[in-house]
Amino acid sequence: MQATAVRNIHRADPGAISTLERLGVSTVHEAQGRTGLMQPYMRPVWRGARIAGSAVTALCHPNDNWMIHVAIELVKPGDVLVVACSSENTNGAIGDLISTSLKARGVKGVVIDMGCRDAAEIEQMKFPVWARAISAQGTIKGTVGSVNLPVSCGGVHVNPGDVVVADDDGVVVVPRLDAAKVVKAGEEREKKEATNRQRLLKGELSLDIYDMRKALAEKGLKYVDGPLD
Amino acid sequence: MQATAVRNIHRADPGAISTLERLGVSTVHEAQGRTGLMQPYMRPVWRGARIAGSAVTALCHPNDNWMIHVAIELVKPGDVLVVACSSENTNGAIGDLISTSLKARGVKGVVIDMGCRDAAEIEQMKFPVWARAISAQGTIKGTVGSVNLPVSCGGVHVNPGDVVVADDDGVVVVPRLDAAKVVKAGEEREKKEATNRQRLLKGELSLDIYDMRKALAEKGLKYVDGPLD
Amino acid sequence: MQATAVRNIHRADPGAISTLERLGVSTVHEAQGRTGLMQPYMRPVWRGARIAGSAVTALCHPNDNWMIHVAIELVKPGDVLVVACSSENTNGAIGDLISTSLKARGVKGVVIDMGCRDAAEIEQMKFPVWARAISAQGTIKGTVGSVNLPVSCGGVHVNPGDVVVADDDGVVVVPRLDAAKVVKAGEEREKKEATNRQRLLKGELSLDIYDMRKALAEKGLKYVDGPLD
Amino acid sequence: MQATAVRNIHRADPGAISTLERLGVSTVHEAQGRTGLMQPYMRPVWRGARIAGSAVTALCHPNDNWMIHVAIELVKPGDVLVVACSSENTNGAIGDLISTSLKARGVKGVVIDMGCRDAAEIEQMKFPVWARAISAQGTIKGTVGSVNLPVSCGGVHVNPGDVVVADDDGVVVVPRLDAAKVVKAGEEREKKEATNRQRLLKGELSLDIYDMRKALAEKGLKYVDGPLD
Amino acid sequence: MQATAVRNIHRADPGAISTLERLGVSTVHEAQGRTGLMQPYMRPVWRGARIAGSAVTALCHPNDNWMIHVAIELVKPGDVLVVACSSENTNGAIGDLISTSLKARGVKGVVIDMGCRDAAEIEQMKFPVWARAISAQGTIKGTVGSVNLPVSCGGVHVNPGDVVVADDDGVVVVPRLDAAKVVKAGEEREKKEATNRQRLLKGELSLDIYDMRKALAEKGLKYVDGPLD
Amino acid sequence: MQATAVRNIHRADPGAISTLERLGVSTVHEAQGRTGLMQPYMRPVWRGARIAGSAVTALCHPNDNWMIHVAIELVKPGDVLVVACSSENTNGAIGDLISTSLKARGVKGVVIDMGCRDAAEIEQMKFPVWARAISAQGTIKGTVGSVNLPVSCGGVHVNPGDVVVADDDGVVVVPRLDAAKVVKAGEEREKKEATNRQRLLKGELSLDIYDMRKALAEKGLKYVDGPLD
Repeated sequence: MQATAVRNIHRADPGAISTLERLGVSTVHEAQGRTGLMQPYMRPVWRGARIAGSAVTALCHPNDNWMIHVAIELVKPGDVLVVACSSENTNGAIGDLISTSLKARGVKGVVIDMGCRDAAEIEQMKFPVWARAISAQGTIKGTVGSVNLPVSCGGVHVNPGDVVVADDDGVVVVPRLDAAKVVKAGEEREKKEATNRQRLLKGELSLDIYDMRKALAEKGLKYVDGPLD
Repeated sequence: MQATAVRNIHRADPGAISTLERLGVSTVHEAQGRTGLMQPYMRPVWRGARIAGSAVTALCHPNDNWMIHVAIELVKPGDVLVVACSSENTNGAIGDLISTSLKARGVKGVVIDMGCRDAAEIEQMKFPVWARAISAQGTIKGTVGSVNLPVSCGGVHVNPGDVVVADDDGVVVVPRLDAAKVVKAGEEREKKEATNRQRLLKGELSLDIYDMRKALAEKGLKYVDGPLD
Repeated sequence: MQATAVRNIHRADPGAISTLERLGVSTVHEAQGRTGLMQPYMRPVWRGARIAGSAVTALCHPNDNWMIHVAIELVKPGDVLVVACSSENTNGAIGDLISTSLKARGVKGVVIDMGCRDAAEIEQMKFPVWARAISAQGTIKGTVGSVNLPVSCGGVHVNPGDVVVADDDGVVVVPRLDAAKVVKAGEEREKKEATNRQRLLKGELSLDIYDMRKALAEKGLKYVDGPLD
Repeated sequence: MQATAVRNIHRADPGAISTLERLGVSTVHEAQGRTGLMQPYMRPVWRGARIAGSAVTALCHPNDNWMIHVAIELVKPGDVLVVACSSENTNGAIGDLISTSLKARGVKGVVIDMGCRDAAEIEQMKFPVWARAISAQGTIKGTVGSVNLPVSCGGVHVNPGDVVVADDDGVVVVPRLDAAKVVKAGEEREKKEATNRQRLLKGELSLDIYDMRKALAEKGLKYVDGPLD
Repeated sequence: MQATAVRNIHRADPGAISTLERLGVSTVHEAQGRTGLMQPYMRPVWRGARIAGSAVTALCHPNDNWMIHVAIELVKPGDVLVVACSSENTNGAIGDLISTSLKARGVKGVVIDMGCRDAAEIEQMKFPVWARAISAQGTIKGTVGSVNLPVSCGGVHVNPGDVVVADDDGVVVVPRLDAAKVVKAGEEREKKEATNRQRLLKGELSLDIYDMRKALAEKGLKYVDGPLD
Repeated sequence: MQATAVRNIHRADPGAISTLERLGVSTVHEAQGRTGLMQPYMRPVWRGARIAGSAVTALCHPNDNWMIHVAIELVKPGDVLVVACSSENTNGAIGDLISTSLKARGVKGVVIDMGCRDAAEIEQMKFPVWARAISAQGTIKGTVGSVNLPVSCGGVHVNPGDVVVADDDGVVVVPRLDAAKVVKAGEEREKKEATNRQRLLKGELSLDIYDMRKALAEKGLKYVDGPLD
């Protein structure tokens, strides 16, 4: 199944995608039991974006961005392009031309386990990209990989059609079939956090809100008055 | 003395703290003989803040932020919370809820040798955080550490009550009892630098201002006219 | 030829420098056959600058910035100061005073394979610096190196007078005698990219613009309709 | 499906495992189209071992090795234990006691995306371990993960029952259902390499054995006599 | 108190040192509550040594090993020399000459948060060194630091006279006044581990030895029979 | 001058090469004024070798080892093959087949700023290789680079014919025309070190041998008797 491009994939429910985008990476990551988070080396090329969409996946080889071009034909508006690489590589496999094309075709952003170049232009056009590095180093079109097969990106397994959520905190992947469940858990968490935020703003302590004092004592925490010096 | 939370600590002199904050990390670091600087992996979550305050110290374990909650009760307005970790860890041990609580209680900022999440929200609320990483990865509340005992954070030993100064250049720690001396040395340096800045602005050379030519010659520096190619 | 400062160097053609600055790092790097790019750890201290100029080179030793002071006397307006280090070091060898002096003397920016401090001040004065790290750690003036001899900086060999181009994508070095040739290749690339950008904006596919379909088939790429799950 | 331990898994064919072990990581990686290789940070704790076996997978959390204990009950002789972690962590989650237990139960070795401790003892007992780090830092038993669900380890997706091959070159994963095909391709490669090795030993050139001269000329390689200096 | 060399220090009890050496890093680290372990980048220059001794501390500056020479005069037989550095540096601050001298004076080994050179010679003379890097890069004698003042080395605070234990697992520091207590806890742990090792060798499960099944169930671990695919 | 292979190069004097090999990396590095040392990430694939020879240089692209095959034809017995890469890459560009061929043609070893695979076989055949990483990841033959043009490898500029010295301490490059001078300086250093080694073995202090006490006092080092605690 190598050297294969899959034309059609199941995509996630647009309503679920929309809610997951609003919830953001940290809340979604919590809501699905602290799984699916890419390694923290996956950083936004520019700060301030938050996106979610169905993953179109591409597997490239180091120094080679050929399969991104293949993927561009297979995306649909609202998708997020997820680019994995068969070994560690920081070459700039995406730049302003590819970003222009993806944006023209309605893609919401790119998550790429390689490098990104034309960082200034990409920031100007406000096209969201998360990458392993910023590097001008160019790539060739020499080796065939895959599009819309499962990939490992940023240390996370991504199936085509999974929901990818990305913001300043990083990138999290929600399996397509879990999306509804994660939406529900995330909205509950959101409500609870809103309540707690109000209480914390008023100066209440998390020790009391979450009722931690007894557990701390049982684990052996001792208070002393001090100062000790 | 593990598993201990110390309620009261000596804090540094407010006047000294205020001056050290104005002087900033690089000047303070020079003024105390180039000591006390945390490793350069300690970076601001957002750029542009400069703070100083007395350190309230917490020691957490990897994947665990329990002692931060204990520390929140023990801080006073104007403090800086310093969070160390018993081994390398990038989990997001602080986020917008903890930041909200710390800000509500008057804490000036956080220096944490773990990860930070909710980076966008923390930037919006302009709460200053210096961290080892930005990561959405959540933490548990399972293991007891300490609050207000000495810790090693970013490669520097921090006693509770030491002055922590942080800005875009990093984080420097001034032992509480040295603060007055460092203030004095820093202000002298500040004056000297202001004078030198004016001279440099006019085009004078540092070679002349600092009288380096003779020492360079003694060390063997030769000038040749060139070009050599 | 160690411990030598060369007063005069050949500088690159101002017209070529001006065009290379406009083209930017990624285009220049492509135009000279994907060579001359510094490692991606060389990052701008602040985002948004783009400069080019003739290289004045300095070789420092770790924890020592003495030769930068020697170099300041030998720069001319429009130059870029390139600072190499004889071993890995992140100390803040350049700060706001040196930046003030270099700016006063007309230098366009600094590329330094060591650390930079006073990051906030340098951003405020809009003086462009690319560095390996931001660190307040100070340096001494104890060991003599060289000025305007060839150096290795960011993994690239730099001769004095070579054109250094730097922007948010990193730093690329164009050998002085190749500058005219690279300008020509870069301008051709620029035109071609402008045309392609227009076609991509209209939704055309790079697969068609660059005529890739046949080559992909020859390399064995198979399309399947899917979905596979 | 979190917090689940699966008692029974399909295991790979013993004959295929045995051949893949003999072929070793580099040959197997080539034979399956250069896929399935873990990141190069996965290094042997001691050099000189080569193993293969069916993967029993465990997902731990940072600073926590609880699920390894659960996995020990579910292994069978000849298995390889693959331990993933939900975020970056170098704590020593396996040491000589766990190694003693795994060895007693017939496990051939461990591949762990966390740290390993008791390195000297593990080397003395010749129990093969590949890890991200060597670190004495202990772990707790506080959070439940999974056993024998799919995991991402060293950047590679591993299904329980996949064949894991590990030696001084690193770790490669062969999907269970591909094992026969990879065995066949690997044995062919092995034969071809043996022939080529003999020819190279006699001084023949790879340029001729692989018939590269024409392709090099077509790609534009020019020979010049030199010397150039 | 900078620029100071302290001639006499309290040293730890020889009996305690001897036992801590036998117990080794991982056991000692556990016995003192998982504290005091240096970061895992501190690695042995050659594998197979295990030492313990009272710390003589030196603080050097990057690219400078002057204070090591000062420390050599102040060591006593059985000591371990601990060298910290005021900022990140990998220069080879210790080589075969310094090792020869330290060995001649009875020092058991060196723990240095800088580089080490002459690695082959140091291995041949079986002088134990733990370092941040192996590098031939030489150092100067230009800046004064301290000897026998507290330092931060490998992320751990070390007071002169503390017990330093080092082996293939890394380096752990036991505060001098805690040594007796840690010896006791370590010996208890050693006994318990010996018993458990015998039970594990016979094939007993840690799940049963440590009685984990109930806690796992309470935390929600579910067993399913499988296979799932 | 890209895409060029130069057939003939000037080689260094065999006598000089032989002496530089005996002196080893650290002494040679000192003898030429602490220049020419590759970054410490360049590590031996196996420990215990020491080689020197004239550099035959190859420039590869990431994921591509084609130019190594071109270089094999152009080496002479006694040469050292130096492989640079146009961007950061850890792919295993050299393995046992290439090593077999190079050894058959009399090459003394390889220094490669990419990865190495077949580490166990290469250690068995005792063929010395220094590399950036060990990785099984294969490479393609798709892009033309150069042979026997100047390259940057491990952060050092290497001209074909320069003397490359490599051992457990790393890799140092001596410009061909400086070899005689470095030999002389190295032999003097060797003699001086032999004398000093004898004095240190007898327990003399480097403080006295190198007469450092006065300089230390002038720089402000104060001795205090202690203990301070």
